[in-house]
Amino acid sequence: MPPPSAHPGLPTLADSVRLAEDGVHLLDRRVFPFEHRWVHARTVEEVAVAIEDMVTQSSGPYFAVLWGMVLAAREAAQDDPGTARKRLRAAGERLIATRPTNDQPRKAVAWVLASVDAGGADVAAAALAGARAGDADYRRRSREMGRAGAALLPDRGRILTHCWGDLYLIGVVEAALEVGKRVSFVCTETRPYLQGARLTAETLAEMGVETTVVTDGMPASLLRAGEIDALVTASDRITMDGHVINKVGTLQLAVAAHTFGVPFHALCHAPDPHSATGADVPIEFRDGEEVLHALGRRSASERVRGWYPAFDVTEPRFVTTVVTDRGAFRPDRVHEYWSEGTAP
Amino acid sequence: MPPPSAHPGLPTLADSVRLAEDGVHLLDRRVFPFEHRWVHARTVEEVAVAIEDMVTQSSGPYFAVLWGMVLAAREAAQDDPGTARKRLRAAGERLIATRPTNDQPRKAVAWVLASVDAGGADVAAAALAGARAGDADYRRRSREMGRAGAALLPDRGRILTHCWGDLYLIGVVEAALEVGKRVSFVCTETRPYLQGARLTAETLAEMGVETTVVTDGMPASLLRAGEIDALVTASDRITMDGHVINKVGTLQLAVAAHTFGVPFHALCHAPDPHSATGADVPIEFRDGEEVLHALGRRSASERVRGWYPAFDVTEPRFVTTVVTDRGAFRPDRVHEYWSEGTAP
Repeated sequence: MPPPSAHPGLPTLADSVRLAEDGVHLLDRRVFPFEHRWVHARTVEEVAVAIEDMVTQSSGPYFAVLWGMVLAAREAAQDDPGTARKRLRAAGERLIATRPTNDQPRKAVAWVLASVDAGGADVAAAALAGARAGDADYRRRSREMGRAGAALLPDRGRILTHCWGDLYLIGVVEAALEVGKRVSFVCTETRPYLQGARLTAETLAEMGVETTVVTDGMPASLLRAGEIDALVTASDRITMDGHVINKVGTLQLAVAAHTFGVPFHALCHAPDPHSATGADVPIEFRDGEEVLHALGRRSASERVRGWYPAFDVTEPRFVTTVVTDRGAFRPDRVHEYWSEGTAP
Repeated sequence: MPPPSAHPGLPTLADSVRLAEDGVHLLDRRVFPFEHRWVHARTVEEVAVAIEDMVTQSSGPYFAVLWGMVLAAREAAQDDPGTARKRLRAAGERLIATRPTNDQPRKAVAWVLASVDAGGADVAAAALAGARAGDADYRRRSREMGRAGAALLPDRGRILTHCWGDLYLIGVVEAALEVGKRVSFVCTETRPYLQGARLTAETLAEMGVETTVVTDGMPASLLRAGEIDALVTASDRITMDGHVINKVGTLQLAVAAHTFGVPFHALCHAPDPHSATGADVPIEFRDGEEVLHALGRRSASERVRGWYPAFDVTEPRFVTTVVTDRGAFRPDRVHEYWSEGTAP
């Protein structure tokens, strides 16, 4: 059993990866909301496999990597500090390799390693302190980004979103509700994993927001009909020249929104200073068989094959605003985020 | 059991609505290709309900209405010719009402009524002759349109298609293969019914064409990457000013294709002289609950609702070519189809 939530006021998915004495507990997003089943990872390797197997996704891997690094430090408890640091670095590489497109695991590893490198002899204590600081930082930045995002929304309106924006989206909705904005949401179901239908729609319903689900092919007709006031999605990465990398399908929505004059606001804590442009970001291809299944049932015969690019790249010309924890930027000026100071 | 196919060389779905002594047999497309189950409709009303229940779709309702009108004529066998014609007209109204967006049922009814009105005392024989003529005409026109469509395709290339183009798409593929073109296909799965994954992909595989299935959100990334040479879809209706009405999702693909410079060829036998522009075509809204299910399993919790516009309207600016049985037209000139003569 997982330990109790540290954030009881928030929706279920806002605290769905938890550290305990016996390992890391991950709420299995593959079966949410139909079942609340937790996966128990006892080792770094089990955490890595859980991330690869999509037990958790979106912001989930960030927290899983934070707590996975704490497990690595515990595993190295008998080693001398030098060896322990080496093992932690190897664990970090293993965890980062779970997701080639999303750069959150890298940031989570950096939090823990920085703390360990600065923390003296007690590697386990330093790792835990670093992971906790990374957890608090991510939540704070999501709330600040959320306030900047909410400011862009109309007082009343219908927002289109794609896939599952996790703490980013929760931050925007919390902030919008806080200032009395009355927004409803249209969620794409987001095949093949149906994150929109299962995770986004459920979480918005938990937050008391009116929510409608459509298939991934329907938004253009809604945009053309003037039914949507803004497209808002999270992003797995935003490049220094304003390319938005996010769950496959985002590009198609951004192109349609652009065509029909609806703004697209992309959420990220900060643009990635290591990614100059869209071509620099590796796109993860997952097993095409996943496209040929829906909720565990096969959707096509054995005679055909599937193709599954997991992310796509949206050019800055289709992006209205990049929303960060330092406010909103035009995509062509998002590099200015970093001219305001170094990485927070 | 259904009678044997009258077109044994063609793929399964090319002859999936068949007339027999005991009624009309409709291959159940809701479970194809996993099961080859036939629905037996003994009366006009059962045919209408089968169409409404999506037992058959795309070109299927056209054939179902042709044969359903023959059932109506049989049901009126004891009536005097005047009463029989009245009953046939009522049956036609019932069958046309099954699909407000697709105008094929109306055309099928017209074939039978025209034959009955011209055919003297034996209403049943005239209805059967009219239905058979309507069947042959539809197949001939699909082949002619197919030849015009195939001429637009590259000698080698990858074609994106959406939903299930039925005899229209089969006509294009047959003609392309006949002249030695080597085309492969990418099919959108087409939620919520998965016609692309189940019907299109399977039929293309039956025809020996290499076929890949993607989710409805993926095509823009393929188009942006230069992986697609043309978008080809059937249409439920094309207006006199070049608006394409087709399965919801077509607009989104057309917008993406236009944005990334890939041609969109829309197939239809002829533009509809009764539809001046897109706003004239009623869009069928189906039960939102259908969006919240995949292959019979619920895809979201009970707390959210679904929204299901079954068709969308693509403006002529996103359409490269309208392909008819009289050749290819630019969308803004498609009205010229009719200046070449009256309805074939």
